[in-house]
Amino acid sequence: MGKVKILTERQLRQAVALDRSAVQCVEDAFRALATGQVVMPPILSLAIAEYNGEVDVKTAYVPGLDSFAIKVSPGFFDNPALGLPSTSGLMMVFSSQTGVLEALLLDNGYLTDVRTAAAGAVAADHLAVREASSVCVMGAGMQARLQLAALRLVRPITHVTVWARDASKARALAGELRDDGLEATAVPDAGAAVGAAHIIVTTTPSTTPILMADWLKPGQHVTAMGSDQHTKNELDPACFLRANCYVPDRQSQTAELGELRAAIAANLISKTRYFAELGAVIAGKAKARQSATDITIADLTGTGVQDTAIATLAVQRAASLDLGTVFDTEA
Amino acid sequence: MGKVKILTERQLRQAVALDRSAVQCVEDAFRALATGQVVMPPILSLAIAEYNGEVDVKTAYVPGLDSFAIKVSPGFFDNPALGLPSTSGLMMVFSSQTGVLEALLLDNGYLTDVRTAAAGAVAADHLAVREASSVCVMGAGMQARLQLAALRLVRPITHVTVWARDASKARALAGELRDDGLEATAVPDAGAAVGAAHIIVTTTPSTTPILMADWLKPGQHVTAMGSDQHTKNELDPACFLRANCYVPDRQSQTAELGELRAAIAANLISKTRYFAELGAVIAGKAKARQSATDITIADLTGTGVQDTAIATLAVQRAASLDLGTVFDTEA
Repeated sequence: MGKVKILTERQLRQAVALDRSAVQCVEDAFRALATGQVVMPPILSLAIAEYNGEVDVKTAYVPGLDSFAIKVSPGFFDNPALGLPSTSGLMMVFSSQTGVLEALLLDNGYLTDVRTAAAGAVAADHLAVREASSVCVMGAGMQARLQLAALRLVRPITHVTVWARDASKARALAGELRDDGLEATAVPDAGAAVGAAHIIVTTTPSTTPILMADWLKPGQHVTAMGSDQHTKNELDPACFLRANCYVPDRQSQTAELGELRAAIAANLISKTRYFAELGAVIAGKAKARQSATDITIADLTGTGVQDTAIATLAVQRAASLDLGTVFDTEA
Repeated sequence: MGKVKILTERQLRQAVALDRSAVQCVEDAFRALATGQVVMPPILSLAIAEYNGEVDVKTAYVPGLDSFAIKVSPGFFDNPALGLPSTSGLMMVFSSQTGVLEALLLDNGYLTDVRTAAAGAVAADHLAVREASSVCVMGAGMQARLQLAALRLVRPITHVTVWARDASKARALAGELRDDGLEATAVPDAGAAVGAAHIIVTTTPSTTPILMADWLKPGQHVTAMGSDQHTKNELDPACFLRANCYVPDRQSQTAELGELRAAIAANLISKTRYFAELGAVIAGKAKARQSATDITIADLTGTGVQDTAIATLAVQRAASLDLGTVFDTEA
């Protein structure tokens, strides 16, 4: 007791990248969640309306892992006007056996960005058609970039359309993606951007639908990852009627904070209807896509088990790279 | 962004003592809670049954304070066999305006000990008879010591009786208290220990009542601070029928985690009955003790607003003493 390893954002970026092992780590976390042995309490959420801020705390204990993480994610949406990023935060790693603090991951939200994008790759890997090569990304921020990078780890992506409320940001992102070897186009009309893309990823903080149900075509997969608060909503609730299959990361969360919330509010989905979660699909306990013409939806609100998984990976990697500073809390 | 002040347990012990200013700080926090402007979400609680552990996360935002704290409290009750304390943890301090991490208070639970004892002093100050000079303390651990020290800040305590399940620990504590100038006796019979003490403080992790209703005498004040989980219970539920006045720190918490839980379970108190909270009593919005013969009970489960208050005090004190290490999270 008393010795805490402190890792900075730079060190964590060195230790953990958005790569196949990060995707694998998050996939394993969801699989563990489906076993029923993981302890994952509801999210603690502190709203500071005065400053347009919200702080979420997530955690999960995965039996068999020597440690568990607690993650604090502040999101303060007036920050950009102050020259600061909206999101920041840190993860803490504790011994599963003694509860003693072992490591502080001062990542300013980096590990959250990685595990969130990795979940998008996991969802697409289990739900999108195998030969998916085209993506429509809605939104042009950090997660738009990371979700695309993650998808390229699991599908042979060659074509991308970008739609964003701010057309100049969409053009900038399309340009970056072209520089990165993709056929990428910014498309100002959202319906046209969606077109016949194999995969659609919504990555915005929108509070009104940006993806309409009648745009969807057979075979498409949608990952909605922008909504993580009860005020947000990216999918036209009627998408739930078009979809053959809806997969939440955690139904108790998506019913409150994800796209399922709006579908329930619109009386299109019963509050008591059960959906197999992503972990169950990964574990083979539930079947998701049944045919190449099915329309599938993944609803990702972000789970504590992803945080424990990525934090555990970060601590292992940092140890093998001999990164970090040991701090004596009793000193 | 990127600069975090790190304070160690030793530095925090240097900055914050269990003194009148700590009691004042916690009293102010409860008063703020009674204004209705404080945002204090339900506690996040992660149970790790495999290791007899539980981790609680508490927080509160107090309008007007530039920062808020999030506190992580692990309690792992098999730790003593491993030579480790049961409780540990840390507090984090964030900017109220931007959510940016400002300070890490690596206190191993010290500030929790202080703010918990301070709440006991605040409760007694508002509920016990003015001339209270005798205390019965039930339990002989850290909080037994701290609760007594805190009571001495608000009442002219001269006599103490100590009862504990482990009689040798009770004797050891009584010896310490005598060395400290008090008339202190370990009393093996709990009912006799309670006797006619003006103030009774229960400080145990007991899961069955240790204080029986028919022991209570007119004029006594009881502070029950041991129960903070739905499995714990120190007061015979019939104490609620003897008491003229019951004051929870936060009723939504005591109904789930405090003594009120057992009284509701015993069908002695209606789930929907409203009690004025400690903050309302402090603010003069509710009257607690009405006469010198009233029996009063305070039920303290520990609140996030106390954590934000003590953390804010610690950061201010540390700054004025120039304590701590600044860490660049982006380095």
